[in-house]
Amino acid sequence: MQLGEFKVLKKENNARRATLMTHHGPVQTPTFMAVGTKATVKAMTPEELKDVGTQVVLGNTYHLHLRPGEKLVKKMGGLHKFMNWNGPILTDSGGFQVFSLSQLRNMSEEGVEFRSHLDGAKHFISPEKSMEIQMDLGSDIIMAFDECLKYPATPEEIKKSMDLTYRWLLRSKAAMTRKESLLFGIVQGGLQIESRKYSLDQVTSVDLPGYALGGFSVGEPIELMHEIVKEVGPMMPENKPRYLMGVGTPLDLILSVDSGIDMFDCVMPTRVARNGTLYTWQGKISIKRNEYKEDSGPLDPECDCYTCTNYSRAYLRHLFLSGEILGSRLNTIHNLHFYMSLMKKARQAIEEGRWKEYRDFCLTRFIKRDEKLT
Amino acid sequence: MQLGEFKVLKKENNARRATLMTHHGPVQTPTFMAVGTKATVKAMTPEELKDVGTQVVLGNTYHLHLRPGEKLVKKMGGLHKFMNWNGPILTDSGGFQVFSLSQLRNMSEEGVEFRSHLDGAKHFISPEKSMEIQMDLGSDIIMAFDECLKYPATPEEIKKSMDLTYRWLLRSKAAMTRKESLLFGIVQGGLQIESRKYSLDQVTSVDLPGYALGGFSVGEPIELMHEIVKEVGPMMPENKPRYLMGVGTPLDLILSVDSGIDMFDCVMPTRVARNGTLYTWQGKISIKRNEYKEDSGPLDPECDCYTCTNYSRAYLRHLFLSGEILGSRLNTIHNLHFYMSLMKKARQAIEEGRWKEYRDFCLTRFIKRDEKLT
Repeated sequence: MQLGEFKVLKKENNARRATLMTHHGPVQTPTFMAVGTKATVKAMTPEELKDVGTQVVLGNTYHLHLRPGEKLVKKMGGLHKFMNWNGPILTDSGGFQVFSLSQLRNMSEEGVEFRSHLDGAKHFISPEKSMEIQMDLGSDIIMAFDECLKYPATPEEIKKSMDLTYRWLLRSKAAMTRKESLLFGIVQGGLQIESRKYSLDQVTSVDLPGYALGGFSVGEPIELMHEIVKEVGPMMPENKPRYLMGVGTPLDLILSVDSGIDMFDCVMPTRVARNGTLYTWQGKISIKRNEYKEDSGPLDPECDCYTCTNYSRAYLRHLFLSGEILGSRLNTIHNLHFYMSLMKKARQAIEEGRWKEYRDFCLTRFIKRDEKLT
Repeated sequence: MQLGEFKVLKKENNARRATLMTHHGPVQTPTFMAVGTKATVKAMTPEELKDVGTQVVLGNTYHLHLRPGEKLVKKMGGLHKFMNWNGPILTDSGGFQVFSLSQLRNMSEEGVEFRSHLDGAKHFISPEKSMEIQMDLGSDIIMAFDECLKYPATPEEIKKSMDLTYRWLLRSKAAMTRKESLLFGIVQGGLQIESRKYSLDQVTSVDLPGYALGGFSVGEPIELMHEIVKEVGPMMPENKPRYLMGVGTPLDLILSVDSGIDMFDCVMPTRVARNGTLYTWQGKISIKRNEYKEDSGPLDPECDCYTCTNYSRAYLRHLFLSGEILGSRLNTIHNLHFYMSLMKKARQAIEEGRWKEYRDFCLTRFIKRDEKLT
């Protein structure tokens, strides 16, 4: 396969089983990408990431720009070598974090001036700067620089923002000159179907190797996102990967694959793992609960990950209550394995023409269970 | 070999190369034991412990008694199964922590009443209770319950404490009824050669499979410890393992092996690793230092551990400054590998009749370098 090629191998309704070729090898979709914000997926080695089935690691442009800085990473041979990950890397544009983490933002047509959340130092990111950072990092999949709108926003704000995001996309494309990288455009448009379609038309008018849906997970009701993805997902170009940014729960993933989405990323499985919340095929578990105190069984009897194979719930509870690093590690391994396994089974189901069956199985499991949970 | 057998394979001056048989297999000495206070060697999996060359893991009776409790551990199949470590485990008696960590102690002939540093709850440990806890944990090497004296202490205080420790040793021996476990006695006696000899006579008058030197690392000048170990080490029974508790730096280990010591444990390599201090064959390193910012070389060019094989100093510095768990992990792997490797080389050197050469090589490296360090 050629760099950037996206081959749809099988379809069932809107769900797709496909392969995307990157400079660091093929990615089998649908896929969940592990978030490695600061050049490390928290608590995990690259070998462990491979073991749980990770194909793509996501790096955060905003964080890496502030520390250690993309120039340093470039000098050290790029992000792959720096963090010892030889699989594909996707970097975000920095836009989302500039708008959510930084202080004292100053927006203009040119870009965004902001102060670092680390030390208050002034920084400026424009589409050109974002491309430069991501190219210096040596990213395989580079995201266009977009404005991430607050929620809720007025129709006027949304329109203005989409138009700016479009102009920034054109500048991103002009500035992204690295042959080994693929540039993905980001569809914005808030939480209205009509504005989403408007942004989709704008963004897909630019020929790119992939397109993403951004601007979700900003505090909106989750049903609204599902509704929009269900409508907009299938409208996205058939022959290009579709990436739903920053999403989500196992339920979100299954519903979105059903709407034709191919790629996902989310901090949730790793973040909640460190807080003792674990995804299992029987629902979510809070490992600190007293009921697991003397529970000698595995976290998830239906799971074959390293954690479930070797440790008891009682031990995981003890590690969590004792604040032990190994607790964060074992929990993260399990949650990532769960997500990767969820997607692997989805790929197999689509290949074998039983996607709907698998989807419904997952829905029964996750909807029932999620409602019970705190 | 039979359980508890200690076979000295080779000697060079006072340094010994030997094998101790435990219920979970043989231990090759001299050896450094990794401290796994709360049923986990901080930041490490059992597989990683094996990879760096760990033979014995040490569990802390005080901590495990308070949380999760030895009865729970026993119910879960014992400490080995609970923490998934199938090699030998040594447990301390709880004495050291009762005297250093707990509050409101109330000492009597019977034992020590104290309040937990976790929740202030009242607990009582006696020789019998300590044995019961360690037997419940399923420890391979059980330490007698001793009084750990404060430093400095008067000759009267030392005498009184040694006599109490001796009476507690007799009670420990009577209470330690688990056939699979080996009971080690602890020589106390403060920092006077004469009182150490007095305690040594007392303790070795009880026939046991091993003897330890306790009561060091309590704030005394390190030269004083070296002097006493040099004198007392070779006086300990020839045909039994000699364990120097809670010690120490690489230099301490080499000097003590030279004084006939076989076994060591210390939190130092794991604790300082998490604070970014790393032992290398070129001396100690503080990874946060600015000089490593753009250093693409390995932590220790003379080391073949996982960390040194795969990561740069620049990356380790970045992980440390970012507070990333992977930083603690990679640093711990390296430091433990360094300690285990130091002891492995010592075993090889003694076997091959070049102990003095190896010792002097180490001294040149560590004495020179240690003086430079902060």
